[in-house]
Amino acid sequence: MNQFQLNTTLNQDCFTLGTIKNSLILLLNNKHYPWFIIVPKTSIEQIDLLDESLQVDLLQQSSQLSKFIRGNYTIDKINIASIGNMVPQIHIHVIGRSKTDPSWPGVVWGQTHKTEYTKEEALKVQNKLKTFIPELQESSI
Amino acid sequence: MNQFQLNTTLNQDCFTLGTIKNSLILLLNNKHYPWFIIVPKTSIEQIDLLDESLQVDLLQQSSQLSKFIRGNYTIDKINIASIGNMVPQIHIHVIGRSKTDPSWPGVVWGQTHKTEYTKEEALKVQNKLKTFIPELQESSI
Repeated sequence: MNQFQLNTTLNQDCFTLGTIKNSLILLLNNKHYPWFIIVPKTSIEQIDLLDESLQVDLLQQSSQLSKFIRGNYTIDKINIASIGNMVPQIHIHVIGRSKTDPSWPGVVWGQTHKTEYTKEEALKVQNKLKTFIPELQESSI
Repeated sequence: MNQFQLNTTLNQDCFTLGTIKNSLILLLNNKHYPWFIIVPKTSIEQIDLLDESLQVDLLQQSSQLSKFIRGNYTIDKINIASIGNMVPQIHIHVIGRSKTDPSWPGVVWGQTHKTEYTKEEALKVQNKLKTFIPELQESSI
């Protein structure tokens, strides 16, 4: 666990909002979608190889983020996925999808539409998330 | 629960291999990937709105399928996803991905590569799955 380091691509593409239990909670730097990513601090690369209690933690975190998205954005569906073909470190996407977003009804992976957040906007998301999930240990953005 | 009906698209595109607890286990009719789909028998359309015990059942089923795939196919990664932008009924994809498959490293959704199973091949997958997961209640293919 001590040797955990966030994958370079995830680190470049996301704001780290904070930590819940053993997981980093990231915000993908793309305002087109409310797109959060959960990264458990482990070197194991497949969810089913994690201890079952850690798997349940990830499930609960994805449910918390789903409820946060539904409560704070106008969306039609939540997409949840663990893919990792390019970034092997376990990371779970939790994304609010809307019929008006640029990729609907297709999936978002491989799409190139991108608009970055300002730092202030990212801080605002972090604050809202902290209000919704008080156990979030905030990181400095 | 009594009113559950498998979505028409899923029914057309897949073999129903059987049932584990409250979930149908489907095999997508495309030999390019070992591609299984879990469909809980519910009219609720988002995972986080299910009772937590049902969410944990889905997690365990996706882990069982992941281990089955890893043990029976040559793969490099397992992709797990709940999307549902086109088919709103909850369904969880559990897909073995290989660096030699036609969509690697991209995602499989939206790809058109397809080769169907014969009935015998699908029955063989069902038999293997039954051996690996004895609690599978097999459906007639």
